[in-house]
Amino acid sequence: MSYELCWLKQEIYFTQATVIGTSDIIHSVRKELARGTENDLCFDTPTILLNRDQVSNENLPLSHVQHEQINHLKRDGYVIYQNNEQIQVIGSTDVAVLYGYYHLRRLILTGQNITSVLVEEPYNQIRMINHWDNMDPSDFMGSVERGYAGNSIFYEDLKIIKDKSRIQDYARLLASVGINGLTINNVNVHALESKLITPEFLPEVAELALIFRAYGIRFYLSINYASPIQLGGLTTSDPLDDEVNVWWAHTFQTIYSYIPDFGGVVVKADSEGRPGPYTYGRTHADGANMLAKHIAPYGGLVFWRCFVYNCQQDWRDRKTDRARAAYDHFKDLDGSFLDNVILQIKNGPIDFQVREPLSPLLGALKDTNIVMEFQVTQEYTGHSNDICYLVPQWKEYMEFDTFAKGEGSLIRDVACGSLHGRNIGGMTAVINVGDDANWTGHTLAQANFYGYGRLIWNPCLSAEEIAEEWIRLSLGMDQEVVDTTYDILLTSWATYEDYTAPLSVGFMVTPSNHYGCNIDGYEYSRWGTYHFADRNGVGVDRTLATGTGYTGQYFHENCELYEHLESCPDELLLFFHHVPYTHVLHSGETLIQHIYNSHFEGVANVEAYVEAWERLQGKMEQVAWLNVRERLQKQLFNAKEWRDQINTYFFRKSGIADVHGREIFA
Amino acid sequence: MSYELCWLKQEIYFTQATVIGTSDIIHSVRKELARGTENDLCFDTPTILLNRDQVSNENLPLSHVQHEQINHLKRDGYVIYQNNEQIQVIGSTDVAVLYGYYHLRRLILTGQNITSVLVEEPYNQIRMINHWDNMDPSDFMGSVERGYAGNSIFYEDLKIIKDKSRIQDYARLLASVGINGLTINNVNVHALESKLITPEFLPEVAELALIFRAYGIRFYLSINYASPIQLGGLTTSDPLDDEVNVWWAHTFQTIYSYIPDFGGVVVKADSEGRPGPYTYGRTHADGANMLAKHIAPYGGLVFWRCFVYNCQQDWRDRKTDRARAAYDHFKDLDGSFLDNVILQIKNGPIDFQVREPLSPLLGALKDTNIVMEFQVTQEYTGHSNDICYLVPQWKEYMEFDTFAKGEGSLIRDVACGSLHGRNIGGMTAVINVGDDANWTGHTLAQANFYGYGRLIWNPCLSAEEIAEEWIRLSLGMDQEVVDTTYDILLTSWATYEDYTAPLSVGFMVTPSNHYGCNIDGYEYSRWGTYHFADRNGVGVDRTLATGTGYTGQYFHENCELYEHLESCPDELLLFFHHVPYTHVLHSGETLIQHIYNSHFEGVANVEAYVEAWERLQGKMEQVAWLNVRERLQKQLFNAKEWRDQINTYFFRKSGIADVHGREIFA
Repeated sequence: MSYELCWLKQEIYFTQATVIGTSDIIHSVRKELARGTENDLCFDTPTILLNRDQVSNENLPLSHVQHEQINHLKRDGYVIYQNNEQIQVIGSTDVAVLYGYYHLRRLILTGQNITSVLVEEPYNQIRMINHWDNMDPSDFMGSVERGYAGNSIFYEDLKIIKDKSRIQDYARLLASVGINGLTINNVNVHALESKLITPEFLPEVAELALIFRAYGIRFYLSINYASPIQLGGLTTSDPLDDEVNVWWAHTFQTIYSYIPDFGGVVVKADSEGRPGPYTYGRTHADGANMLAKHIAPYGGLVFWRCFVYNCQQDWRDRKTDRARAAYDHFKDLDGSFLDNVILQIKNGPIDFQVREPLSPLLGALKDTNIVMEFQVTQEYTGHSNDICYLVPQWKEYMEFDTFAKGEGSLIRDVACGSLHGRNIGGMTAVINVGDDANWTGHTLAQANFYGYGRLIWNPCLSAEEIAEEWIRLSLGMDQEVVDTTYDILLTSWATYEDYTAPLSVGFMVTPSNHYGCNIDGYEYSRWGTYHFADRNGVGVDRTLATGTGYTGQYFHENCELYEHLESCPDELLLFFHHVPYTHVLHSGETLIQHIYNSHFEGVANVEAYVEAWERLQGKMEQVAWLNVRERLQKQLFNAKEWRDQINTYFFRKSGIADVHGREIFA
Repeated sequence: MSYELCWLKQEIYFTQATVIGTSDIIHSVRKELARGTENDLCFDTPTILLNRDQVSNENLPLSHVQHEQINHLKRDGYVIYQNNEQIQVIGSTDVAVLYGYYHLRRLILTGQNITSVLVEEPYNQIRMINHWDNMDPSDFMGSVERGYAGNSIFYEDLKIIKDKSRIQDYARLLASVGINGLTINNVNVHALESKLITPEFLPEVAELALIFRAYGIRFYLSINYASPIQLGGLTTSDPLDDEVNVWWAHTFQTIYSYIPDFGGVVVKADSEGRPGPYTYGRTHADGANMLAKHIAPYGGLVFWRCFVYNCQQDWRDRKTDRARAAYDHFKDLDGSFLDNVILQIKNGPIDFQVREPLSPLLGALKDTNIVMEFQVTQEYTGHSNDICYLVPQWKEYMEFDTFAKGEGSLIRDVACGSLHGRNIGGMTAVINVGDDANWTGHTLAQANFYGYGRLIWNPCLSAEEIAEEWIRLSLGMDQEVVDTTYDILLTSWATYEDYTAPLSVGFMVTPSNHYGCNIDGYEYSRWGTYHFADRNGVGVDRTLATGTGYTGQYFHENCELYEHLESCPDELLLFFHHVPYTHVLHSGETLIQHIYNSHFEGVANVEAYVEAWERLQGKMEQVAWLNVRERLQKQLFNAKEWRDQINTYFFRKSGIADVHGREIFA
């Protein structure tokens, strides 16, 4: 099956490049450089690429200052010098050389100047990707849970895929945006995937690890906490049981005999029906530390997900608040995890909604390693049918001030570990990749994949810069293409938010599938996701004063911000407060009028996208243009459905007419 | 797999019985009589059973009056005489002898007196059963569409089932309540079932037909209207196309070469995505008559379903009314169908809801043969989890006065054909049978299967009589068992109605599955099933004056009855009118208070069922007692969920509190 190479599709012909070194990764750099031919863009400046350990006076005479600079590069950092008409890419590690190559490539292809000194260091040490891919078809959600771009690129016919050439290119795409770790199986680990850690599958799993290793990407697996029972024939998975400990110790020994640099494991335990330590009356710390202890001798990590909540809630019970769950479960365990345990915390307290406040657990854990988890795949944000460029959302989270250590305690510094002086930290995300020819279903959704990597390498990049880079690399340099696509991408999150659930109330979606409007779809369910709309108002009271007390999980400044109607930002209003439809927002509109306005505007925006896209015909590859065009039509249909259902629903409830007299169906 | 014999489980030992005749059906009577042994109930009265054609002065000297009586018996009618200490069962046909035997059996086992003369004639000539069984697993609804009692008894592993012993007993159950026809495959005919009419399957299909023939049951198949394309390789299924005509003529010839008494076909055409004559710009009459013409030489019938409506409706469009569809599609075709076409009309205009008015098409067709269709399987009435004895509902339909030919134009006379002087007519129903040991999932749901047969044989029987018969035959004669079960059955429909959707508003159910409460589940869908609840009121305006005009499809008296709020019966109020929550019902309650009251009462009734059932332990077969007990628990849980969701929903919308201050969740 053919596929495109996204932002790597254009090649450069380096006429005078030298690569120094012999490792597999350095060999990957050589392979990259060898791709260009005379038909491609020519780059004639002499170029040398090497690890700082290889620098000598013979191959690269540097100044004292430069020596100081390269010696102080952080792990995976690199410099690009322009010295005496030579480009010099010097990495702190072999993979940093590869990163430097990709950086140089970006500069050349997007027509940017190469300055005399460019220093790059990753903000985050852990830059990870999670696949929710299933080998086992018993998962009714299809072969990629929450995947909207075809089937898994890793599995076919209940086995690991035979032809691994596409995986090779996938490793290139990942490395080109700085990703250095991935899991290849769903955190909901089914029967078959549970066996990936056994000799039945390990020889082939090791082949995959080998592919990624050559691009500096460490290989992880999601594991089933009940493996000692399901694979080992034990009667328990109790983390304090001796036999269980022996079983895991032996299992890790086996894994590392096949994959010596195995990264470690990701665990979804005691969550949404998954097994875990709670079954045995043990804590998450007991559960995680047991694994960590046995994997530590090999240098492995245990990613332990904090997405733990009661998914058998009674909708009648307005005291229980799912938003509180992660904090309530994990805050008191701060400091009790081993050093190679990383708690994996979703960005928001609920579940990857189009708008949620930041999870208060982020920043609250001072003595525990963490990563923050984003969702690149558009589970709640349009399923690769609707355009929703998520980098602006992620950027907002990154810039959020937790006040954990006073003003300026930004999330980006919480996530990477620096705020609390942790040695390790970073980011992970559920990726949006499948075996569709364009990898992401919607061609513009590649920008989310690309943007995730770029942003977590450097959270100080703007969403705008990233968008423009991606467009120029992927859709070409035609200015109208760039401008139009840029405008669409940069407004798309707000547009999607406009025509879907208003003001962070969330979850007005079709149950299970999570696509399309179903306003009461979750209102009487067991999932803890309610909006409480009645004839007077809507929203969830999460205040300390009269609600669930969730606001109390934030540090003082944010608690105060959210607790009071006067200060609570409009866009988070319904997440924190139940207010009447006549409530006047900071914007000056009433709530009900805001609902109507935003839904009409959201659709108008999509209509404008459709029109603008028509004008791009012939100005980019036809296959990409057609893909986006077809999806925009779907998006428009879908947006109108959202608009009309939401407006009608709230008109029927509130009885208040649109002041502009637009069409709302009775 | 073992199974029970329902109301045939008790045997009688006839010590002095004589059966006269030699046909397969008479042989079935002999087999029935031979089942009893000395350990069973002894019946010592000399008994003779025979077809009236076999009566002679030698074997049965009758009076002149008696001769007159038996000579005038309608088809399938029989008499039971008690003459000179002899029981004489005389049938007008062989199968009538079998029916007479089952009648005698009922009298004996339920301890009733055998009077000196008992004359029985069926009200309906067609007494049919439809299975919605799938051979093809591609139907995601499972192997019996709308089946809640396990898998199909006819198919396994994509084939007709090998072991046909259970089908033999199924034929006995059907005949014992007077059923004389059945289809064995879903009206939604998938790829594999389409082939049942081909030589690939006909040898085995003929084996099945043989089994039913011995119990006087004619065998029919549901067919795919696109068969000429899918099976015949033609490019069209146009009923006016010559090749299509040739194809069907040949196909019927083939079918009849395997099954000489094949009953005919059932067709769901141009409905819910099924193919049909509309594709070719032809009418339903064109479509049905083409089939009828080619099957007529063999004496076959074509059942043509009138369940035709626009299933791509826009919820925003309040003019289109699904309730109008059957009448709008078929009324003007009255008189244009051939004599062996039978239009199959669902009892209500929508779809087997717990409460609907009668379909106005019933009675409106004067020159067309019809059958009325009931649904024994509990698609919208509890899925064999909730008890819902449907005979009282059917009885109401049967007694409904259409005024088609003035007062007294009851539906039972419309359905059987007598009102309009049609030669043929009757009843059909979707059955609730699967391969569960008790056949119907919920043991008490056997009463619906039993009751359907008994009621359509004689619509003048009461729901009470039928319930008591079934209980005594199936659960035993213990008086507490009889009384308790009787009370539960007879109140169960009202109870189910009480805790589910109020006053015939219908369809507040989980989409697709149709079980459990989902108030807005269909409110913004394409299915044409809306309740239009807003902050002021609820219901569908179907009046001539201000609504969809549906009331105009009824004859004058009923049109007037439904058109006006003053006369419209409470239980049908929301089907015909959109009224405010403060509207005062004929009962004296406001609408909103009625909603609250009925939902609290419905649950209270189920609680009483649970308690009463506990007291029956040890008084009936344990397996039946446990089955009902377990399902009652489910029903109670489910009923509370309905109650709370409906009450909360309408409280949130209306803002009006329960006058009794009971617990309604905000």
